[in-house]
Amino acid sequence: MRQVRGTLALIAVLAVAVATVSRVQSQQASPSWLDAYREPASRLIGAALRNDAAWNRLAELTDTFGHRLAGEQSLADAIVWAVAQMRRDGLENVRAEKVMVPHWVRGAESAEIVAPVRDRLAMLGLGNSVGTPPEGLEAEAVVVRSFAELDARGAALGGKIVVYNVPFTSYGDTVRYRSAGASRAAAYGAVAMLLRSVGPTGLRTPHTGALDYAVGRPRIPAAAIAAEDASRLQRLQDRGQRLIIRLTMQARMLPDVESANVVAEVVGRERPEEVVVLGCHLDSWDVGAGATDDGGGCIASWEAVRLIKTLGLRPRRTLRVVLFSNEENGLRGGLAYRDAHKAGLAGHVLMIETDGGVFRPLGFGFTGSDASRAIVTHVASLLAEVGATRIGAGGGGADIGPSVQAGNLPSMSLDVDGSLYFTIHHTEADTIDRIEPADLARCVAALAVMSYVVADLPERLSR
Amino acid sequence: MRQVRGTLALIAVLAVAVATVSRVQSQQASPSWLDAYREPASRLIGAALRNDAAWNRLAELTDTFGHRLAGEQSLADAIVWAVAQMRRDGLENVRAEKVMVPHWVRGAESAEIVAPVRDRLAMLGLGNSVGTPPEGLEAEAVVVRSFAELDARGAALGGKIVVYNVPFTSYGDTVRYRSAGASRAAAYGAVAMLLRSVGPTGLRTPHTGALDYAVGRPRIPAAAIAAEDASRLQRLQDRGQRLIIRLTMQARMLPDVESANVVAEVVGRERPEEVVVLGCHLDSWDVGAGATDDGGGCIASWEAVRLIKTLGLRPRRTLRVVLFSNEENGLRGGLAYRDAHKAGLAGHVLMIETDGGVFRPLGFGFTGSDASRAIVTHVASLLAEVGATRIGAGGGGADIGPSVQAGNLPSMSLDVDGSLYFTIHHTEADTIDRIEPADLARCVAALAVMSYVVADLPERLSR
Repeated sequence: MRQVRGTLALIAVLAVAVATVSRVQSQQASPSWLDAYREPASRLIGAALRNDAAWNRLAELTDTFGHRLAGEQSLADAIVWAVAQMRRDGLENVRAEKVMVPHWVRGAESAEIVAPVRDRLAMLGLGNSVGTPPEGLEAEAVVVRSFAELDARGAALGGKIVVYNVPFTSYGDTVRYRSAGASRAAAYGAVAMLLRSVGPTGLRTPHTGALDYAVGRPRIPAAAIAAEDASRLQRLQDRGQRLIIRLTMQARMLPDVESANVVAEVVGRERPEEVVVLGCHLDSWDVGAGATDDGGGCIASWEAVRLIKTLGLRPRRTLRVVLFSNEENGLRGGLAYRDAHKAGLAGHVLMIETDGGVFRPLGFGFTGSDASRAIVTHVASLLAEVGATRIGAGGGGADIGPSVQAGNLPSMSLDVDGSLYFTIHHTEADTIDRIEPADLARCVAALAVMSYVVADLPERLSR
Repeated sequence: MRQVRGTLALIAVLAVAVATVSRVQSQQASPSWLDAYREPASRLIGAALRNDAAWNRLAELTDTFGHRLAGEQSLADAIVWAVAQMRRDGLENVRAEKVMVPHWVRGAESAEIVAPVRDRLAMLGLGNSVGTPPEGLEAEAVVVRSFAELDARGAALGGKIVVYNVPFTSYGDTVRYRSAGASRAAAYGAVAMLLRSVGPTGLRTPHTGALDYAVGRPRIPAAAIAAEDASRLQRLQDRGQRLIIRLTMQARMLPDVESANVVAEVVGRERPEEVVVLGCHLDSWDVGAGATDDGGGCIASWEAVRLIKTLGLRPRRTLRVVLFSNEENGLRGGLAYRDAHKAGLAGHVLMIETDGGVFRPLGFGFTGSDASRAIVTHVASLLAEVGATRIGAGGGGADIGPSVQAGNLPSMSLDVDGSLYFTIHHTEADTIDRIEPADLARCVAALAVMSYVVADLPERLSR
């Protein structure tokens, strides 16, 4: 025991020494310019955490308008509301920048097993899918576990409904089947495609999402089914049963309609032509309420800029929040922003996208120069109170992507605890009930501090 | 430290002493009759845990027939299948005992908010509800949080749709609103009733279940909505918005149809007229696949008796598995069994119901004499390997209830880890995907050992 106690004492002494050295190093490493931002950062965090204002505004958005697919009246109404609210908030240069968006309509839809048993399948048609004939489509179904198995069956799939039963691993791994699965099945003559939903097994929860038809292939109707239904079809097939499925989808693409990106600013006091953009998308899929994807990102970005304005913190450069349109099935908002702001992209200092949910924030992903990375890492150190100090390897987002690419801009994304994200992604369960007010407030704080400091720095971030 | 070490040493010595005494007491307390059952119990447990036979049979039941509401063809087909399979298993006196059951049909149904926003509500009509007029029913809706709030609003509810937004606490606390809510609202002139689902918040998951119309009150249509939708309606109302809801339900009650309780036995070698019953219900709600409620209970009970038969363990008394019909919306199977077996109830030694899911087993609930409780507690001690040694305060079940009451019989229920039970209860998510093969196997082992030993004891359990 004595020896152990001696060792423990030594460890304790060493620990104090290491901590002291670390603190000194940390103080040395912390640049003097950062000190000027400690007080405003503290005020912004305090203001963000003071109440549930952000959550209440997100509730108002999602309760009042529900889901907001491009082309839906609800998105148009939400845009009008956001513009009016932003003006009431005292934000500057509030405007709706016109974007023409696709107008895909789901219509009535259903799928059922017809044989060897009659039962409903929990389904959601995939975005941009064509419909079936009005009376529906009934055919033998073949379950495959991979593209390799699809290719092995090849011509035997003619006239069949192909069911991809690919268990969810990562989004990147499995979303390929949603994107390309219909056209790859159609190449073998399949008449429709069903997809095990891209997400963890939920509560019989289908996940929609966009598909991409390959040029020159027949366009066949495609829908996601719940993981449980895919497993059941697999077991029935494995028992040697012949599967017959009936699919009915009224899905169709209508002519493009006018929509808009909503833009609001706090104009920079010294270099108004230099801009830090906080981006997100106001559109959602036509299920659930688009609370996590991406109403929460919009409210967090907007609220961050509102707090900066409310506290009288006018940074050197302009802060611009952009609620993009049509991220989900066209990305027309992101493309239109790039085109409309082509001349101004050179003045874009940083674009931050918040589209990974507004759960407990962890920090930011960042793509840019090493020098800029060092700077934003220092800025993130101001976010210890909300736990968002981590700067990850890469950052960006779908909406800001076209501009970031065209302008070769530094880009960032808010990183959060994503453990629930893909369980509710593109489902009826994407509602505000999954979002904790305190987490959303922390996201607001993180975005406010990061965007304010970067917009105010004496020198702009290098590319 | 010395003193502490001295104390620790003393504690250690005392602990050994206490453990020794306990072991001696335990050996003393363990009756000699139990020793004869250690070997068969071990064989039964080994056989149950050897493979996934029970899970595979449950998958076959739920995949092949799907949900099985009284009156649905799927239940009739499942009964025919069970009888045939039980005969193939070599069980004895396999038979279908006729039961007339109600035939409630859901039909097409939907609910939507019409104002202040148009959006779908995730809903399931309540079992036994009447339908709306064919064109649906549109009315102002009023959200209440309790019966007290209902009564406070009173006559102001005339012509309205009442929405009960009662967060789930326990089933007993909240199921009152499902059972009685429609008639209590109708007493004030309400034209329909919507209910926050009786269960924890899921993934926008409505829970169906039976309602009871009070005699002499108007019968109004009633449906459950997802917890998320109830919260949204509450928030809209709290913001001063006037709610209009449209409800369309084709629900209707058709004439009774013939169904059956499925019965199979291992006939007792000495006292065949004395019976231990393993009960469960083969019917389910008309959503999901009735895997947890209660296909799993049926397969576990059946598999327990099949293993006993297969291992050549013919107990002194008769083992009888009963797959009851129509537990969910009528209890006609349980009532019919009581009536058909009135003369035989005196010979019923114990009735065990398995209807709380086949998750990880913990033991049994038991209702009966202290002497019998002491005996089954000893029997449960044989189940340490599967973790099912606990004998809880009370046991029983809906199906066995009428017989237990009529015969004043000892009753039991399999107790399991119920943490997931009410999340999937009466929902589309009640599928086999929630059930672990190893847990189900442990449930089979627990039922097999308990039922076999009680059926074989030299003396029957006292009442």
